[in-house]
Amino acid sequence: MTKFVPKPGDIVQIEKNGEVWSGRALPSKGSRLNLKLNSGYNVGIDIDKGTKIEKLGEAESIRHRPVKFALKHDRKKPRVSVLSAGGTIASSIDYSTGAISASYSADDLMSSVPEVSEFANIDAERIFEEMSENLTPKDWQIIARAIFKKVQDKNISGIVVTHGTDTLSFSTAMMSFMLRNLNKPVVFTYSQKSSDRGSTDAAMNLICSTITAAKDIAEVVTVGHGTVNDDYCLINRGNKVRKMHSSQRNTFRPINCHPIGKVWPDGKVEIISEYKKSGEVLEKPYLADKLEERIAIVKFYPGLNPEIIDWYIDKGYKGLIIEGTGLGHVNVDKMSLVPAIKKAIEKGILVCMTTQTIYGSVNPYVYSNLRRLSEKGVLYLRDMLTDTAYVKLMWSLGQAKSLGEAKEMMLENIAGEFNPRLQPDMFLY
Amino acid sequence: MTKFVPKPGDIVQIEKNGEVWSGRALPSKGSRLNLKLNSGYNVGIDIDKGTKIEKLGEAESIRHRPVKFALKHDRKKPRVSVLSAGGTIASSIDYSTGAISASYSADDLMSSVPEVSEFANIDAERIFEEMSENLTPKDWQIIARAIFKKVQDKNISGIVVTHGTDTLSFSTAMMSFMLRNLNKPVVFTYSQKSSDRGSTDAAMNLICSTITAAKDIAEVVTVGHGTVNDDYCLINRGNKVRKMHSSQRNTFRPINCHPIGKVWPDGKVEIISEYKKSGEVLEKPYLADKLEERIAIVKFYPGLNPEIIDWYIDKGYKGLIIEGTGLGHVNVDKMSLVPAIKKAIEKGILVCMTTQTIYGSVNPYVYSNLRRLSEKGVLYLRDMLTDTAYVKLMWSLGQAKSLGEAKEMMLENIAGEFNPRLQPDMFLY
Repeated sequence: MTKFVPKPGDIVQIEKNGEVWSGRALPSKGSRLNLKLNSGYNVGIDIDKGTKIEKLGEAESIRHRPVKFALKHDRKKPRVSVLSAGGTIASSIDYSTGAISASYSADDLMSSVPEVSEFANIDAERIFEEMSENLTPKDWQIIARAIFKKVQDKNISGIVVTHGTDTLSFSTAMMSFMLRNLNKPVVFTYSQKSSDRGSTDAAMNLICSTITAAKDIAEVVTVGHGTVNDDYCLINRGNKVRKMHSSQRNTFRPINCHPIGKVWPDGKVEIISEYKKSGEVLEKPYLADKLEERIAIVKFYPGLNPEIIDWYIDKGYKGLIIEGTGLGHVNVDKMSLVPAIKKAIEKGILVCMTTQTIYGSVNPYVYSNLRRLSEKGVLYLRDMLTDTAYVKLMWSLGQAKSLGEAKEMMLENIAGEFNPRLQPDMFLY
Repeated sequence: MTKFVPKPGDIVQIEKNGEVWSGRALPSKGSRLNLKLNSGYNVGIDIDKGTKIEKLGEAESIRHRPVKFALKHDRKKPRVSVLSAGGTIASSIDYSTGAISASYSADDLMSSVPEVSEFANIDAERIFEEMSENLTPKDWQIIARAIFKKVQDKNISGIVVTHGTDTLSFSTAMMSFMLRNLNKPVVFTYSQKSSDRGSTDAAMNLICSTITAAKDIAEVVTVGHGTVNDDYCLINRGNKVRKMHSSQRNTFRPINCHPIGKVWPDGKVEIISEYKKSGEVLEKPYLADKLEERIAIVKFYPGLNPEIIDWYIDKGYKGLIIEGTGLGHVNVDKMSLVPAIKKAIEKGILVCMTTQTIYGSVNPYVYSNLRRLSEKGVLYLRDMLTDTAYVKLMWSLGQAKSLGEAKEMMLENIAGEFNPRLQPDMFLY
């Protein structure tokens, strides 16, 4: 029993009913003490007479800004523009709930990682502060316009965008279509832990992203941890990458391809796959940001109510991505989706098929059921990821002058979203 | 130019405009010749005057039954019951479309793999013939009842069920809940290529399944290729496994756990993880097959129309699995799902959260947005797979006497569907 009342920021140890917690006190109400554990998670502990509170360290500002360094400028080094679009990488502790929310400016972020100035001169700017689960198609247009300004600036060698992990691959896939004739690297990076905590992965990801942004890659890519250790980052094509783990730092994996390369924080880069080089792009870059937003993903599963497709028809939707099973199946029997799909196609809705296995291709030529769907006019999008297919369908229907042209665009390999040469070791890379 | 017209079954080589195809002729219409290539895929070639057709082999029945062996019976060996529930493993070429559809009886199938009799005496029976994408929740009840009959038969050591790959993990997860106090192995197996073709994976999968079904594993498991080679099969827990590749034979992977073990076709078994042993089950097995079918999966993505949740409310649905991003996020801002989710919960709908990253856990204690959802009453299903969560919610609401009881069942580790000890190397196993 103790009368010591911890101030927010105090490092304390709590003992109650034989259990022991230690961590940093968060703002708390009444007799409930909120504690940020050393693991990064928070607990709320009801303080009663039997609770023992021991102070291990003084209160200091938790919501600290990182130590700021004036980044050195060096005329010989390439200029890299860093744009912040929110996410954990730019987040700190939210006192209202004790959890993490978006904060920090791009400038704060970069000046907390002075190592980047070894590789480039940095211009940091904020697009917006938002956790990526809250982004909408309109935000993709805002991000694309901000990037495109920097694409047009001839003094800038490459662009780094910080972004939340949750919907990052939707954004990168969309950028790969919106930024036409892209002639410099657009590198999206992220963090799986907030950057004001000890074991953050943000620093290495930012350093490796800056290194990549100074190279000759004329593509939209992601750069982040390749393993759970701080050894190297993977460079992945923005429309062939997916968040595959909810918490591990090596979460972004190449899907149906190898990574473009690996990059080490000391500046070393190893190229693994072919990519578009800056020097190969001779035509002028332009921004194609018009979208058709009435697009939906329908994930198929046993027991799915086929009326859901009728609902999208009635709501005036223009395109549907059916995420089928295996090679692109849906029920064609007792709970058949075929009548609803047929109706959608007759109404001029563009219906495409991807697979929920994540890895591998859809293929309508192996099983009878699929052949029938394909004959009805469903487009089979080979090895394209569902999320990439979704943004590409928004983009194609926004750009095309006719349904026929949109269909052709969907099947054309516009930004490396199809890989015609799948290999067994691309599975679970 | 040639006047030779291939009969279905003839092995032919076709040359046209410099391209060469060789394979087996399929029934064809008019001037279009359908050809099953040696790769297993089919093409349709328009035969014109410039097309050269060469016959390489005689017509024979393609839809051949495999050579039947009378399986030897040996009183000293365990008795294994093989039940066929369709799928590629029991399929042959469908002449109407030239593609693959369900056929073959379990008896045909087993007698084409005489090696199984080295390990067990086989009883083969058919449940039904169906490609697994056409299965509905009612079919799960039919499969469970057929299995349960064999569970009650004390002379039977284990059960092998052949099933299509596409929705196999839905079925195995459901069986893991329906078959209570299971005291013998229930092994689901499959094939990624039809079993009447040379390079089929069916034989090895059937042999390894039979070996597994004669062991002491009192769980529902899948057994199938661990690699793209014919070296060993993985034994995976039926509710922690997922089809992760649309065509590779090593498609079924353990998710958020290690496999239970490996099994080689020579009879060797290596155990990797803990499992429930037959001798540990002392209570009488029973069948709990009542389901609430008004359950849906809502996959969240940027731009998802929140009205879809209202539609499910209006349709009288009783449970929703929200497949969120990352740690279990949905939009809480401009296209917020929160009001609709709140309304669903107020109407007594059980709303649960899983992650679309596949690997890792959801966790409402890290980010402010999730904490708010959790406070509204959304159940966070930790590391449970979306597909497992979907069938478990059907089952829990079918079994429970109250909503409160169903919630408790959802969070209880009933058949190993939660793994409290996630390790980094379980990612992309």
